[in-house]
Amino acid sequence: MPDAGDRLARYARLAVEVGLNLQPGQLLCINAFVEHAPFVRALTRAAYEAGARYVDVSYSDQHVRHAHIEHASDDALGWSPPWLVERLRHLGEVNGALCAVTGNPEPELFADLDGARVGKARMRAVAEESLKLTDGLCNWTIVSYPNAGWAQTVLGEPDVDRLWEAVGHAVRLDTPDPVAAWREHIAILQERAAGLNERRFDHLRYRGPGTDLTVGLHPESDWKAALDRSAGIDHVANMPTEEVFTAPDARRVDGTVRSTLPLQIQGNIVRDLAIRFVGGRAVEIRASSGEEFMRTHASSDEGAARLGEVALVDGNSAVGETGLVFYDTLFDENAASHIALGAAIVQAVEWAVGLDPEERHERGVNHSSIHTDFMIGSTELEIDGVTSGGKSVPILRGGEWQL
Amino acid sequence: MPDAGDRLARYARLAVEVGLNLQPGQLLCINAFVEHAPFVRALTRAAYEAGARYVDVSYSDQHVRHAHIEHASDDALGWSPPWLVERLRHLGEVNGALCAVTGNPEPELFADLDGARVGKARMRAVAEESLKLTDGLCNWTIVSYPNAGWAQTVLGEPDVDRLWEAVGHAVRLDTPDPVAAWREHIAILQERAAGLNERRFDHLRYRGPGTDLTVGLHPESDWKAALDRSAGIDHVANMPTEEVFTAPDARRVDGTVRSTLPLQIQGNIVRDLAIRFVGGRAVEIRASSGEEFMRTHASSDEGAARLGEVALVDGNSAVGETGLVFYDTLFDENAASHIALGAAIVQAVEWAVGLDPEERHERGVNHSSIHTDFMIGSTELEIDGVTSGGKSVPILRGGEWQL
Repeated sequence: MPDAGDRLARYARLAVEVGLNLQPGQLLCINAFVEHAPFVRALTRAAYEAGARYVDVSYSDQHVRHAHIEHASDDALGWSPPWLVERLRHLGEVNGALCAVTGNPEPELFADLDGARVGKARMRAVAEESLKLTDGLCNWTIVSYPNAGWAQTVLGEPDVDRLWEAVGHAVRLDTPDPVAAWREHIAILQERAAGLNERRFDHLRYRGPGTDLTVGLHPESDWKAALDRSAGIDHVANMPTEEVFTAPDARRVDGTVRSTLPLQIQGNIVRDLAIRFVGGRAVEIRASSGEEFMRTHASSDEGAARLGEVALVDGNSAVGETGLVFYDTLFDENAASHIALGAAIVQAVEWAVGLDPEERHERGVNHSSIHTDFMIGSTELEIDGVTSGGKSVPILRGGEWQL
Repeated sequence: MPDAGDRLARYARLAVEVGLNLQPGQLLCINAFVEHAPFVRALTRAAYEAGARYVDVSYSDQHVRHAHIEHASDDALGWSPPWLVERLRHLGEVNGALCAVTGNPEPELFADLDGARVGKARMRAVAEESLKLTDGLCNWTIVSYPNAGWAQTVLGEPDVDRLWEAVGHAVRLDTPDPVAAWREHIAILQERAAGLNERRFDHLRYRGPGTDLTVGLHPESDWKAALDRSAGIDHVANMPTEEVFTAPDARRVDGTVRSTLPLQIQGNIVRDLAIRFVGGRAVEIRASSGEEFMRTHASSDEGAARLGEVALVDGNSAVGETGLVFYDTLFDENAASHIALGAAIVQAVEWAVGLDPEERHERGVNHSSIHTDFMIGSTELEIDGVTSGGKSVPILRGGEWQL
């Protein structure tokens, strides 16, 4: 890898050019942890060099949040400061760009707190405003910043350089021309999505250790990949991305599913998550760690216990090639097929874009203030597409794409 | 000194208990640099332990700001994001508390930028909203956090422990009972202010190397010290504080004044500042560094070239005892008599509290979006109070208080 300053600058330019596709004159909001400051500074410079009008950074601090969850009164616990809501509302109004940075320096900081309180401590109004942005008002991207704490979690030692190598591979920064590599990669994923769209499966069937699940699809569920279009701007919402994904029929999900990778969320790591669905609804949630948190999280609102996304990832992704568990959904969801509780990928069901939450709910396009992916794929998981005529077509076998 | 964790926690408790006098149920907003995170976390814990309802932290990043000043278009340069204005407006509406943290890790970061652009880059709407808060809506305090960059500037080496010792002495954290030490200190300063109030000087006369200045006082200019009262809550707005101060008659300032200590402001250090006043207005501004910045700064608005504060400090203050130049106004202004360009200490002229800006201006109680103190005191500076009858009374000689 090149020296640290250079790789930061190159990574930042890639995020601004390919991830955000930032346009001259745009407002850019960056959300990051305080520990991400070196990367945030590089992103900011890259954004101004690309013509940003203004770059606003909101640094959050998990230790500040920890003290809040520990001490706040019940009614203050999930309070959304109105100025944070206003920030996102304004960003949507001017069709600005949004960049979130992941790579948690202390992914289990909240493990000592009451899981139910952690689950209730979500800023719901902020989350809802944020979903409006990612539902079409903003060009946005999520990128990660390798740091010592995250490296410790992933590698068992704070070897930041080794984590950089893995991240650099996953985001194709180790290729001679990362922008060209992304263009090629996007084309391959979009071809895979097109193949699924031609087949118009009625539902998916998942079978593997601890998993026996059917997930209904809408006749119009449109498989998508890599490139989103928001306010007329193509952007890559996740870097890395290796998935093809769509919104399922949230009323037609039945059976049991077991996670195959840990899920890092809100200062917790949820391990061995197992969920039983009946008629679309999660009726039983178990986990070997983070169970109380997940139960509270999945009861955040009516849609939090239903699926909003199904995503297919084969075993040969650039993320998978690293052989690492990243304890970061941005990466782990791109090494394994996954599903998400909560808000539907509404762009995947075009007729639902204008509907109000109640109508969406009735018609099986899930609405929620959460969107929480968890990984269920492995080489042992078999996924079939089943046609409306009842014909099963293998999609994934032994981690290999079958179509 | 006790170990690092303990001194941070003790300092934070002192800031919350004495500085803010935080009340149960209050909203607290903290403004700090990203480099201040360890202290911010301690402040947050102390605030929740004292019953804060919610603690909001706004971390700013000078490198992000540097990129903005370097690249932003002229019309975007001084833009105030409306959500930052809303944050302060809301804080005032609920009479919350405000804590600012100083101790600049890179005090000359903007020295390579065009000084006029740095001067224009102020978020004026944010500054104006902030002045409303400190003019009586909030209990507030400014405290500092010793860090490596600041230590390098002050001591010529990043000896954070030595800087902690100096800061600890200045804020009386090195006493067995800092809260009691503050109560005693506040009483002494208030007695000094009462002595000045009894005399009702018509104006002050300053004489020293490069300084020959008269500053008119209002008949009602009330000398204040240490303890402010805002929304019914007594608080100590500056930790440390060693000054007695009031608002001058902004129309009656004449002569020349030369700064005796460097002034760190907005990523610049202004050295050897010399200002000539005619009829209350700064008509000539010179400096050996930061001159262009200071000229632009003093033309931010109509009141930016007039005085809003005069403050008297003797040579025996706890800050002065350290023998250090801190390159931080919170400290240096408490080692030397100082004056401030910009907004008047309006609580010092009670009849002006309700007046609109134009009326204030006409009646010599300065209004501005800036309030910039600079240090003019030294053992060589002689300060007299002059009565309306023309009698001169020595106030400071050789750094010793004379009254």
